[in-house]
Amino acid sequence: MTATQTPEAAGRHLPVIENEAAAGRVILVCEHASNAIPARWGNLGLRAEERAAHIAWDPGALGLARGLAARLDATLIHAPVSRLVYDCNRAPDMAGAMPARSEVHEVPGNAAISAEERLARTQAVYLPWANGLHNLIAGRIAMGRRPVVITVHSFTPVYFGKPRAVEFGIIHDADPALALAIHAGAVAAGGLDARINAPYSAADDVTHTLRLHATPYGLANAMLELRNDLIATPEAEAAMAERLAPLLARAVAQVAAIGAGG
Amino acid sequence: MTATQTPEAAGRHLPVIENEAAAGRVILVCEHASNAIPARWGNLGLRAEERAAHIAWDPGALGLARGLAARLDATLIHAPVSRLVYDCNRAPDMAGAMPARSEVHEVPGNAAISAEERLARTQAVYLPWANGLHNLIAGRIAMGRRPVVITVHSFTPVYFGKPRAVEFGIIHDADPALALAIHAGAVAAGGLDARINAPYSAADDVTHTLRLHATPYGLANAMLELRNDLIATPEAEAAMAERLAPLLARAVAQVAAIGAGG
Repeated sequence: MTATQTPEAAGRHLPVIENEAAAGRVILVCEHASNAIPARWGNLGLRAEERAAHIAWDPGALGLARGLAARLDATLIHAPVSRLVYDCNRAPDMAGAMPARSEVHEVPGNAAISAEERLARTQAVYLPWANGLHNLIAGRIAMGRRPVVITVHSFTPVYFGKPRAVEFGIIHDADPALALAIHAGAVAAGGLDARINAPYSAADDVTHTLRLHATPYGLANAMLELRNDLIATPEAEAAMAERLAPLLARAVAQVAAIGAGG
Repeated sequence: MTATQTPEAAGRHLPVIENEAAAGRVILVCEHASNAIPARWGNLGLRAEERAAHIAWDPGALGLARGLAARLDATLIHAPVSRLVYDCNRAPDMAGAMPARSEVHEVPGNAAISAEERLARTQAVYLPWANGLHNLIAGRIAMGRRPVVITVHSFTPVYFGKPRAVEFGIIHDADPALALAIHAGAVAAGGLDARINAPYSAADDVTHTLRLHATPYGLANAMLELRNDLIATPEAEAAMAERLAPLLARAVAQVAAIGAGG
C-alpha cells in the first residue's frame, strides 16, 4: 500500500490511491470506503452506533477492494470521508449527496443545509475526489493504457426491515457489456445469488461515478455490490476477493476481446 | 473581466474565468480561445503564419464569447494554450488531442509524441482545464444554480480547398434539446445560413466537452460553430454577439420551460 497523496490538504479531502504502479488494466474505485467524519462536521448529530452502520459507509467494501487489487494487480482509489458528509457517488444536487435521512435514520447535521454549506462540502470532499479520480483515469488513457473502471460497494442484508436475498449485485449504466460478462461468470461459477442491477439500478442514481468517469471516455465499467454480511471479517473479505478475482479477470478479458471499451 | 486564476502555476496551465459572479444560467466555454504555445514546446516546428491560422485556435471565438457573456450576464471560461499543444475538446487518446496533422498542415512538433510526453501535456494542459471547468460547473450545481453549458467555436471558410456555405452550425451530443431550439430560432430570425450538426457532428469526436461536463449532470448543452470570416474583426464579433445573444436567451428559456436540463 502506498498512499500517494496526503489525506487532507488545505481543508480538501483528497482520495487515497493504493498500488498506483500496478500493471493491470483495472482501476478499482471505492467511494464509500470510510466512515470518518472530519472534525469540522462534528458527529452530524449521530450516535456512535449509527456512525458505524452501513448508512455511514459500505462495511467490508474497502477490505474486499484491497483483496481484489492484490489479486488483479489493480490500482485502487478510495474516498477518505463518510458518505454522510458527502456521498462521492452522487452529484451535488442529488438528495443522497448530503442525505437528511438514510434508510430509517435521520441525520440531524444534514437536516437543513444551506447553499453555502452544500458548496463547501462539494469543494472539500466531492471535487477533490472526482478530480483526483479523473487525473488517474485520464493519465492512464494518455499513456495508452485505457483502464477498466470497477466500483466496489456493499449493501445491508436488511433494508427497511426486509431481508434481501441477493448476495452479489452487478450494476451497469449506459454500457452493460462488462456487467453482463461478470454476471454470466458468477452464475456459471455458482455459489452466490448473483443478479444484474440488484439491489439497485442506474434508475436509483447510484451510477454517478460510472457516468462521470467511464462513459465519457468509452471505458468498460461496472459497479459491484456485495451483501455486507458476506464480507464482515478480514477473512471473509479475503475469501470473497479470492472467489471474485478470477470472475472479474475473465470478464475483463472477454470485454477486451470483443472490442468494447478497449 | 476578472481572471480569477493565474494562467500558469507549477507548469500547469489553468483555465481563465471571466465574469465569474454573473447572475445568468449560461456558462460559455471556449476551448480554442488562444493560439499561445508555452515556451517548453517551442514553436512545434510551425511558421508564424501557421501559428496564427485556424489550425492553432478558433479565430474570433473568444471575442464572440466575451460579447455573448456581457449580453447574457454569463460566466465565460477559456483555455490559455493552443489546441496544437493539447486540444482541450479532445480526450487524451483521440488523434486530434495532439495532432500530427491539421487540415493540410503538418505539425512537426507533434510527429512523434512519446507516451510520457502525451502524459505530460495531459497533466499540464488538459487536466487543469477539465478539472477547472468541473469545479465551476459542480459549484454552480451545489449552489442550486444548474447551469446551461454552451461551447463557442469558429471554423475556417475553406477546408481542404473547398468553400463552406454554412455560416452558423449548432451541434449536439446526447441531448439535442438546446441545439434544436437555437437552430429553430436562428432559422426563424433569418440572415444566417444556420444548420444543425454542421460543419461537424458528434460523430467527428468534437463534443468531448459536452460529454464530459454536461451529459453526466443532465445539463442542457450545445456547441456553437461560427464561420470565422463573419467574426474577423472586433466590430464583427460584437455584431454577431448582438445577433446571437437574444436567440440563445430565448432557446435557454424554452428548454428550461419544457423541463429539459432544468
